[in-house]
Amino acid sequence: MADYVPAPGRNHLFVPGPVNIPESVMRAMNRNNEDHRSPAFPKLSKSVIDDVKRIFKSSKGTSFIFPTTGTGAWESALTNTLSPGDKIISFRLGQFSLLWIDQMQRLRFDVDVVDYEVRHPALLLVDGVSSIGAIDFRMDDWKVDVALTGSQKALSLPTGLGIVCASPKALEAAKTSKSLRVFFDWADYIKFYAAGTYWPYTPSIQLLYGLRAALDLIFDEGLDNVIARHHRLGGATREAVKAWGLTIATKKDEWISDTVTAVVVPPHIDSANVVKLAWKKYNLSLGVGLNKVAGKVFRIGHLGSMNELQLLGALAGVEIVLVELGVNIKLGSGIAAAQAHLSKNTPLISSRI
Amino acid sequence: MADYVPAPGRNHLFVPGPVNIPESVMRAMNRNNEDHRSPAFPKLSKSVIDDVKRIFKSSKGTSFIFPTTGTGAWESALTNTLSPGDKIISFRLGQFSLLWIDQMQRLRFDVDVVDYEVRHPALLLVDGVSSIGAIDFRMDDWKVDVALTGSQKALSLPTGLGIVCASPKALEAAKTSKSLRVFFDWADYIKFYAAGTYWPYTPSIQLLYGLRAALDLIFDEGLDNVIARHHRLGGATREAVKAWGLTIATKKDEWISDTVTAVVVPPHIDSANVVKLAWKKYNLSLGVGLNKVAGKVFRIGHLGSMNELQLLGALAGVEIVLVELGVNIKLGSGIAAAQAHLSKNTPLISSRI
Amino acid sequence: MADYVPAPGRNHLFVPGPVNIPESVMRAMNRNNEDHRSPAFPKLSKSVIDDVKRIFKSSKGTSFIFPTTGTGAWESALTNTLSPGDKIISFRLGQFSLLWIDQMQRLRFDVDVVDYEVRHPALLLVDGVSSIGAIDFRMDDWKVDVALTGSQKALSLPTGLGIVCASPKALEAAKTSKSLRVFFDWADYIKFYAAGTYWPYTPSIQLLYGLRAALDLIFDEGLDNVIARHHRLGGATREAVKAWGLTIATKKDEWISDTVTAVVVPPHIDSANVVKLAWKKYNLSLGVGLNKVAGKVFRIGHLGSMNELQLLGALAGVEIVLVELGVNIKLGSGIAAAQAHLSKNTPLISSRI
Amino acid sequence: MADYVPAPGRNHLFVPGPVNIPESVMRAMNRNNEDHRSPAFPKLSKSVIDDVKRIFKSSKGTSFIFPTTGTGAWESALTNTLSPGDKIISFRLGQFSLLWIDQMQRLRFDVDVVDYEVRHPALLLVDGVSSIGAIDFRMDDWKVDVALTGSQKALSLPTGLGIVCASPKALEAAKTSKSLRVFFDWADYIKFYAAGTYWPYTPSIQLLYGLRAALDLIFDEGLDNVIARHHRLGGATREAVKAWGLTIATKKDEWISDTVTAVVVPPHIDSANVVKLAWKKYNLSLGVGLNKVAGKVFRIGHLGSMNELQLLGALAGVEIVLVELGVNIKLGSGIAAAQAHLSKNTPLISSRI
Repeated sequence: MADYVPAPGRNHLFVPGPVNIPESVMRAMNRNNEDHRSPAFPKLSKSVIDDVKRIFKSSKGTSFIFPTTGTGAWESALTNTLSPGDKIISFRLGQFSLLWIDQMQRLRFDVDVVDYEVRHPALLLVDGVSSIGAIDFRMDDWKVDVALTGSQKALSLPTGLGIVCASPKALEAAKTSKSLRVFFDWADYIKFYAAGTYWPYTPSIQLLYGLRAALDLIFDEGLDNVIARHHRLGGATREAVKAWGLTIATKKDEWISDTVTAVVVPPHIDSANVVKLAWKKYNLSLGVGLNKVAGKVFRIGHLGSMNELQLLGALAGVEIVLVELGVNIKLGSGIAAAQAHLSKNTPLISSRI
Repeated sequence: MADYVPAPGRNHLFVPGPVNIPESVMRAMNRNNEDHRSPAFPKLSKSVIDDVKRIFKSSKGTSFIFPTTGTGAWESALTNTLSPGDKIISFRLGQFSLLWIDQMQRLRFDVDVVDYEVRHPALLLVDGVSSIGAIDFRMDDWKVDVALTGSQKALSLPTGLGIVCASPKALEAAKTSKSLRVFFDWADYIKFYAAGTYWPYTPSIQLLYGLRAALDLIFDEGLDNVIARHHRLGGATREAVKAWGLTIATKKDEWISDTVTAVVVPPHIDSANVVKLAWKKYNLSLGVGLNKVAGKVFRIGHLGSMNELQLLGALAGVEIVLVELGVNIKLGSGIAAAQAHLSKNTPLISSRI
Repeated sequence: MADYVPAPGRNHLFVPGPVNIPESVMRAMNRNNEDHRSPAFPKLSKSVIDDVKRIFKSSKGTSFIFPTTGTGAWESALTNTLSPGDKIISFRLGQFSLLWIDQMQRLRFDVDVVDYEVRHPALLLVDGVSSIGAIDFRMDDWKVDVALTGSQKALSLPTGLGIVCASPKALEAAKTSKSLRVFFDWADYIKFYAAGTYWPYTPSIQLLYGLRAALDLIFDEGLDNVIARHHRLGGATREAVKAWGLTIATKKDEWISDTVTAVVVPPHIDSANVVKLAWKKYNLSLGVGLNKVAGKVFRIGHLGSMNELQLLGALAGVEIVLVELGVNIKLGSGIAAAQAHLSKNTPLISSRI
Repeated sequence: MADYVPAPGRNHLFVPGPVNIPESVMRAMNRNNEDHRSPAFPKLSKSVIDDVKRIFKSSKGTSFIFPTTGTGAWESALTNTLSPGDKIISFRLGQFSLLWIDQMQRLRFDVDVVDYEVRHPALLLVDGVSSIGAIDFRMDDWKVDVALTGSQKALSLPTGLGIVCASPKALEAAKTSKSLRVFFDWADYIKFYAAGTYWPYTPSIQLLYGLRAALDLIFDEGLDNVIARHHRLGGATREAVKAWGLTIATKKDEWISDTVTAVVVPPHIDSANVVKLAWKKYNLSLGVGLNKVAGKVFRIGHLGSMNELQLLGALAGVEIVLVELGVNIKLGSGIAAAQAHLSKNTPLISSRI
């Protein structure tokens, strides 16, 4: 099927997700359906259910791969560990924290929203959709009770898998949680894990083979090398923004993300126009600012299957678009800063030394 | 990635789902991720959300395409239309009806299970996972309030889409339903439909392009021709079973399905061995009997992207396997009956006349 | 892109080539171009150039993988070993022998066409396009000097590779051959083999990865098991023809082929109509009779990636078509004979025992 | 199958061919074999044989699509129009002209090699492998007699098709040419064209579907827009080289190519190291200098499916690599020049306005 809005060459996909899918993962998914009840399938199932825990840096956790999205994974985390009316202390930090808070409230939990750090003996639930597999995250060491991600982010797969990892303490809580749930019920998974058939309902054969290939890529590169690569790409992006004389929307340094950079545009510019012109002239897909930062920021995703020159191509495009929209910056200035950062921090590709 | 249990030639996939994916649908899904917020995407979204209603034979309904499975689609049907404690009259008919009843009870509805027909003014919810798109179903004419299916059945896609169609009466009920829900909440979809962005959370780009291609195939063939083809293939399978001197598990003629045939094996045979030998020697995937018919029946799925000679190849395999396991039937007998049925009922392929 | 003459379900491809491509081979070819001069590519090149000799059962030979078809591979065999005016003794056996003889004559060789066996000390050139990799062939043991095949036959790849294996005696002859040639000149290959860059002109990256996957499948199954499978499928086809009371076009038993069966139709039937009806009603692709057997025979290819139930489905289709065209045979009769043959001769799939 | 030398993110393929394949072309080729003798196939065959003439800007010509490479297409051009001993006046211009001259000599033509323009009434044969479909070429207007290209260049397909277009005068010459040829003989094609079956030997089904998709992309963009895009990308590359203070290897301005730029490195640098470091650190594939410019130049291909930001990413990579190897240039300098050129010359994408 043809594209609806074709353009020469590749689309430059720099939204904060979904991200580019590596060719080897696309190949792994290019297959007919299979009987998921065949004697062959449990071997694949077990391999991905076990190995996906490694991207959470968890050995003690139990992983659940739901045929859903990040939103569904969230719902699973909440309804399996909490009962209606239970108190939740939630942090307001970015657009998706607002969506999660909304979900908590609609599921009738008692939510306290805070803007600051709180030490607390409660269960610790972490939305890692935009970070796990790309930014250092240590579930066991940090005593996280439930962490979750989605397939279309650091794993560089299509949307369709909501991946949850639960600590023993979270599993214990699930036994007494009074929240109604069926589709998202961990208990069904645990029953099928014990039976060795793994899936309480039909999984996506294609996505599981894809997940296997995606995990192989991550482990071949080395998870810490993947994290270092994201740090390098994030750093280069921030250097470019600084060289342009612009600021990023993140207020505190410790909140900076290596997977997405939200760039604040000068007051006379509508950031939606940056995104539009990038798409219309340079086949570059950027993210708009959401809600209260709409019109004020645009977002550059640098996440998943991505390397230095892909990023430099996109930054070169952002730079031209800003200039074309009248922002007073010098062509090449941001690129030069990003190049310097990358030249210094990029190692040789290990398979090619 | 290699198969785990490779075998020469094609796998003959005759489980009752997932089913074979047509090549043109696999091609349509063989693509990188896209920005689902791009100006291009709503056109595709609208086209599939609108057109999928045609397989429900509904013009009045509203369709919802959830990134989930049939089980999730069920949960959406229940939690959007009913409040906890509401009375449900549910029919016991096959394994999946038991699973749905279990789901209703766990969601705290008050379920009356009946084995007979009941006329009632209540909302009418229909699980069409194994039938819609393959067997005549007329949502509007039959005044069905919610009907649903999954992508891996008649639509011949990978697993991953739970497709729900709701009548105006069901939408009205959703406004007052007190069941807690977020991921499966129709209201979020309706809000995004109104905004023209269509998706409350990230959809699978690949599955939506695949759905577009799958619908094109169905409409090109003609939905009623698709239904007639399933009737023809179901009829041929039943003729073969009859010629073998065996019976099908369906007790009443009106319960016969054109998408799956459950064959009762002679008492001295374990039906699981039929499935095992078919897989181990002939690369033929059949369905085992579930629960109380385990060991007594095996199931032949004849659903989705399938034609006459594919079925005859599988029936020839079933026949050999039965003989090899000691069932007293004559080689060629079932095939001859199926051939006669197909020869009489198969039209010329319309594109090739 | 859509098919031009779509039909529900799979096409049953039973022409004598091109044949069905296994899914794992299609996946291996689903890739972007690469720089064939990169440091990565020689490893793949070497692996296929070396390993392809195994399907010739040759360790002494030198293999050449030309970006061409079987016809080109023939031209390469002739022009590299012979000079214009050289005498060739050629056997007339089937349609393709006529094409090769025509090619020899047009290249100004002095061809003696014989219909009987001749012992002779000359170079021995063998057209194995329809046999090598499917039927026992032992290049070294049988002292064959040049043997060749094409990718779209037993290797189950797309068309595009002409694969030639030359004995030391043939290589010696190539040094003094006076035939003009460039594209098909072995000397260019040998020069690039020595340099470790392998390709005198740009190879198809996709076909080479596909060849790697195709060889892996053959070696995993075991070449002798592949040959046994072809013998089993050929035998089953011949049993079916016999049960129908029809004859095959091959006059002597020792000329019987395990890769294609040419069936003689009764005199009142035009074999072209068998092929047409199979295509128009059952999505079954058969081969027509060529030249002097046009109208009198049709051909069933059973070659490459193929298993027992695929064949039985096709034979069931042939049987119905013959009956529909008025041939006096009993439905199920040929299938029963083929089933009996296959049931007795098919081993369990080794990966599934 | 995994890559042999994996690296994160995409490979940046900037060799002068093979080039990047668009996703829609990869999808079109992701298919099983078909019977090329089926009633469906001639429609596809005719459409590509006819339409491919448009990229030659020829309406009077006859096109031949050979299952071969550019080298084979050359051989076809020579052996069909000339007899051994015939005089050829050939221009020495670049590495491939030397290869063609070598081919002419080995085929026993009488070659005069000249370095300057000659007006002459002879047949005019043009090697357009690196230009046709990317640079303005008008076969009819310019009275070219044979022109040819390969699939892996401007058409952005895998290697495997050698495409030749012959004028009426060339076809006339072919009737009396005494060069021996079979595989490359136009007469066989013309015979099969007349019969409406189109192919004297088995074509690659996949490449023909791919060619159809590739032509669709070119015609959708508009051939003159494709040419303008190549001119824009070539211009940007030359601006970058100039800004770096380096020179390109092309001596005369009228010899400048919009599909490849050969950059001369400073004397103390080995250009092979530029190519190596680009590959080893930045997953960037550049072309080495061949023969007498080995070590002195490297080549940047900017051909086929390619857009502005892909090029800028690659130029950013070249720039870093040059700096890392000690060339005295300022990071960002070349990019800025290229950005300025592209910003000024790039139109909005027509489907997105």
